[in-house]
This record gives sequence, C-alpha cells and structure tokens, in this order.
Amino acid sequence: MSNKIRAAILGYGNLGRGTELALRQNPDMQLVAFFTRRDPSTLKTQSPEVPVYHIDDILSKKDDIDVLFICGGSATDLPKQTPEYAKYFNVVDSFDTHAKIPEHFAACDASAKESGKIALISVGWDPGMFSLQRLLSGAIIPDGSDYTFWGRGVSQGHSDAIRRIDGVIDAKQYTVPVESAMDRVRSGENPVLTTREKHTRECYVVVEDGADKERIEREIKTMPNYFADYDTTVYFVTKEVLDRDHAGIPHGGFVIRTGVTGKDHETKQMIEYSLKLGSNPEFTASVLVAYGRAAVRMNREGISGAKTVFDVPPAYLSPLSGEEIRKKLL
Amino acid sequence: MSNKIRAAILGYGNLGRGTELALRQNPDMQLVAFFTRRDPSTLKTQSPEVPVYHIDDILSKKDDIDVLFICGGSATDLPKQTPEYAKYFNVVDSFDTHAKIPEHFAACDASAKESGKIALISVGWDPGMFSLQRLLSGAIIPDGSDYTFWGRGVSQGHSDAIRRIDGVIDAKQYTVPVESAMDRVRSGENPVLTTREKHTRECYVVVEDGADKERIEREIKTMPNYFADYDTTVYFVTKEVLDRDHAGIPHGGFVIRTGVTGKDHETKQMIEYSLKLGSNPEFTASVLVAYGRAAVRMNREGISGAKTVFDVPPAYLSPLSGEEIRKKLL
Repeated sequence: MSNKIRAAILGYGNLGRGTELALRQNPDMQLVAFFTRRDPSTLKTQSPEVPVYHIDDILSKKDDIDVLFICGGSATDLPKQTPEYAKYFNVVDSFDTHAKIPEHFAACDASAKESGKIALISVGWDPGMFSLQRLLSGAIIPDGSDYTFWGRGVSQGHSDAIRRIDGVIDAKQYTVPVESAMDRVRSGENPVLTTREKHTRECYVVVEDGADKERIEREIKTMPNYFADYDTTVYFVTKEVLDRDHAGIPHGGFVIRTGVTGKDHETKQMIEYSLKLGSNPEFTASVLVAYGRAAVRMNREGISGAKTVFDVPPAYLSPLSGEEIRKKLL
Repeated sequence: MSNKIRAAILGYGNLGRGTELALRQNPDMQLVAFFTRRDPSTLKTQSPEVPVYHIDDILSKKDDIDVLFICGGSATDLPKQTPEYAKYFNVVDSFDTHAKIPEHFAACDASAKESGKIALISVGWDPGMFSLQRLLSGAIIPDGSDYTFWGRGVSQGHSDAIRRIDGVIDAKQYTVPVESAMDRVRSGENPVLTTREKHTRECYVVVEDGADKERIEREIKTMPNYFADYDTTVYFVTKEVLDRDHAGIPHGGFVIRTGVTGKDHETKQMIEYSLKLGSNPEFTASVLVAYGRAAVRMNREGISGAKTVFDVPPAYLSPLSGEEIRKKLL
C-alpha cells in the first residue's frame, strides 16, 4: 500500500460515487478518505472501510493525500473549492462552464504555483477527451473543420428544466444527434449546420393526474434556450415506465474533423472519435482518475500550477512503464 | 521568416512528398532544404525554390535546421539514419517495424541524449495516433479490451507480393475490415477474433496476355503470411482500369475499446477512434509535421532524448498558444 497513490474524494454525488468505483479498477491507487460538507455520520458510501471526514478537517490530512478529486458542481462549488484546495493538495476537477475556464484556470494557477501542487482542471469527456481530440485533429489537419455532436444521452439540465413546469412530477430529456447531419459532415462537404439541424430533443414526462398535457407540451417546446431552437418530441409516460426504462444516465457523442491535404487540397481526410457511455458520471470519473495519476506523477517531477488535458504527456496516464507502453501499445 | 520553424526533409518518396506539402499548410513552419542520396540535380521536387543537397553535405547545414524529417523506409533506412542524424538534429521518423521499436528507441535515445536533441520516433497513425488512442482508452477504461481494424486501404507490401508472381504486370491490394466483426466488438461482447474474422483482402490484378489466371489466383490465395490466413478475392482487370480506379493510396482504420465500469462491472462503456484517409502518405506526413513542431518546442525547453507520441504534451502540437487552445478547444 505504501507505494500506492493515496486518493481522496470531496463531494459525494454521482461523480463522487463514480470516482469511488473507478479507483477500485486502478490497483496502483487507493482511496483513503471522503470529505463532505454534511454530517459525516450521515454519509453512506459504498466503501465502509474508508473514513468520512467533515470538510473542515481536510487540512489535518494534508500529508496523507496525494491527490484530491473535487467532485462538486461547476456552478458554485468548483470556482471556490478548486482554487482553495489547490493551496494544499494536487487536485483534479471537472469544471465545465466553458466561458469561465480562463478565469478558473487563472485562480487555480495562482494557488497551485504558490503551493507547488498541480491543479488539473476541466477533466472529463467534454471538456476533456473531446477537447483533446479537437486539438489533436486540428493540429494534424490544419485545413479543416471540426464538428461536435452530443448524445444520445441524458441532459440533467434539460431534465431539471422540465421538472420545474407546473404539473410535472418527473422527467428525463435525451439529446439526440441527427444522423443525416453527421453523414453530411462525414462526406466532407463541410456544411454549416444550425442548432436545429444538429440535435433533436426527446422528453419523457410524468404528469399529475388531470394535468393539462397540451399546455405542458407547449411550455416545454417553446422554452427559450433549452428547447425553442430544437425539434422536440414529448412523450407522456407513467412513473413506472420512467423508472423502468429511463433510470440510467447514458451519454456519448462524436467529434468529427474533415479536411484536406495535397498539392491542390484535393485529398479528403477524416478523423472521427466517438463515445458510447452506459453511464456518464462513471465514465467522467474514470477519466478523472487516470488524470489524477498523471497529476501526481507530474508533481513528483517538480511540475506545478494549473494544467488541462492539453498539458499532460499521455504516458503519465497509464500505470505501465514507458518500456511497457512502447512494447505493448505503440 | 526568422521566427518560423526551419524544417528539412531527408528522402523523397511518397512520405517526403507528403511532408513537403504538409509543411505548406503550417505557416509557422518553413521548408528550407531537401537532402537526398541521389544526384541532387536529378531530384524534381514540387518546391523549386527550396534547395536540394546531397546527404553528404547535411552536417554543413546543422545550424540552419530546427527539425529534420527522416522519410525513409523502416526496413533499412531508418534504423541507420535516425540514430545517425539525431547526433546533430532534432529528428522525426515513422519507424513502424513493431518488434524492433525497443532497439530503435534505445539507439536513438543514446544519440539524442548525447547531442541534446530530440528524436521523435514511430510517428504517424499506426504506430502513432492509433497507439495514442490505445493508451488513452486503456488508461480510462482499465477493465476492457481494445481492437484495431485496418482499412479499407491499400497495403503496399501485399501489392508488391502479388507483383512478384510470374505473369503479373501490376496489382493493388486492399485490406478490408469485416463490418460484422466490428459490430460484434461494438456490442461489447468482447469477442476473440481470428485473423480471418477481422479482415478480408481484395486484389486487383493485371496479367500478361495468355497468363494462367487460375494459377495466379491460386498462388495469391495460398501465399503464406500474406494471404493464406485470409479470405481473399481476386479481380483480374486491365491496366487501364487499374490506373483509372485504383491509382490512389487510401487507407484508414478503427481503434475500438469496450469495457466496463460500476460497482459490479455492470456498465458498458465504448470508445471508438477512426480514420478515413484519402491518402495514407499525406496523412502520415501531416502527423509527422505536427510532431515536428512539438519536437522543436520541447527541445527549446531543454528536453532531449528519444520520445514517442506517448511523451508529447498535446499542447505542443498546436501552433496556438495555451490561452488560445483553452479558450477555443477545451
């Protein structure tokens, strides 16, 4: 155990639970603590052998933790927590509020440079693996365009938006990429696609007895930002059906780059990356854990400051040695 | 021009020509010289403004070149050339003899460590981008399997093997991935696939007048290593048809990883990366050029020795700044 990377988790929602499970799949890492803002005695984890501490006690564990996975939300938790705990720990987060990344990066960089730790931010699949693919493909095929499609998968934000409508008991919303739009992209025709052309939205909605379904459907379909710009289909279902058929949190998507090479730009080239995820939070957590390993290894070599997936040499993600990866994977 | 990365090309086959063209698509780089073993006056490049030197004169240009793209073959050229020129230059090669990579890495590492330069070896798409995807996906989903399928694309080695048969004038061989095998992989069933189940081979063959087609077809289909383990289809065509319909060098392929996450490993996850390349050498060259940029930037930071795609922080591949890539691509 002494050579294992000692990991801790702050925040125990879907992502914290996913990280807990992902760590079990990585024998070079060991989960040593949970931290929570709740009363620790009320937190029932899947790992009863791992102690749960109140967040106020986190500094006393400073020397016992190699990397802290901060599993809070991007809206209010991470902008505070990541810069704060980067003062003491190597940290990894999944900050995904795109417009605020520069600001978040700067705040984390200041803390981490001061402490000599690494703050690896915006890790996951988008931002994260999708970002990495956009970078790689764009560097290889400079004369081209890339397209990101999301789905088929559950959007928590859109599901929540439906649940706030009067008369709605529960709801699940799927974002669905439009296959014909993807085929146009793959053909290399380099189309300009509107929001409506790229994705459709499917809603499974449970309503109260006697609720006005027509009004609810209209309210969903005309909701600005969330649904108004999309072709949306609403299915009214019973709570039983929702719980039986729509309990999971699948997701996925596609990053496609098409472009040209050759003397007269006559040669078409295409790179496509796709994910089909049975569980969005479990996959995101698996990415966090691999990057947590990298954060610790980079920090042990004296590297510090805020980093993103763009800054991590891929070899640091693997538990195998340089020799092994060259032999087995190159 | 003074701030541009000064690039040179050694070897002017398909890959050298592709590198010449790829450099034009990267305005931060400038092709400053070709080197050849032939009489330089006989080499007709697509860039008459760029001088062609004999390879024996290469050391005199030592201070005028930031990165040397070594575009020779893996069988005999690269094992000698890359370790040799890594003594003087940052070099990039596409060495692809898998079993000899450890040996090649060690030889290049010794030279490059001594000179303080970088030798970035085995760059391209397989080895190269496919290797990188195998590493990334394996690090994220430790409990899983990965599968690589190649094609539909031209195999030069197999085409050459057919051309050596008595009575054959010309030939082109396509490696074709078996769609149903890929679908089994994508379903997550984790199949064990034989060589025959993964790929088929399609041969377009031009023969001499009066040649014994039955014998030629039999010789192709039973050729050990090349065809005997595959379902092979032979089409006899005229030279006109071959030149009209099979002049290109397309290729591509798929790296698929399926695996599981979750408490009881109950959640399926899939990552798929694919390439559809109008020209194999032009794409490979485009990868070389992006990694050439990275080699120079890493070397300017004091890094030296042999490196592979596993060692390069992705940010170094892009001409954009760290701020720009975080803003535009993350």
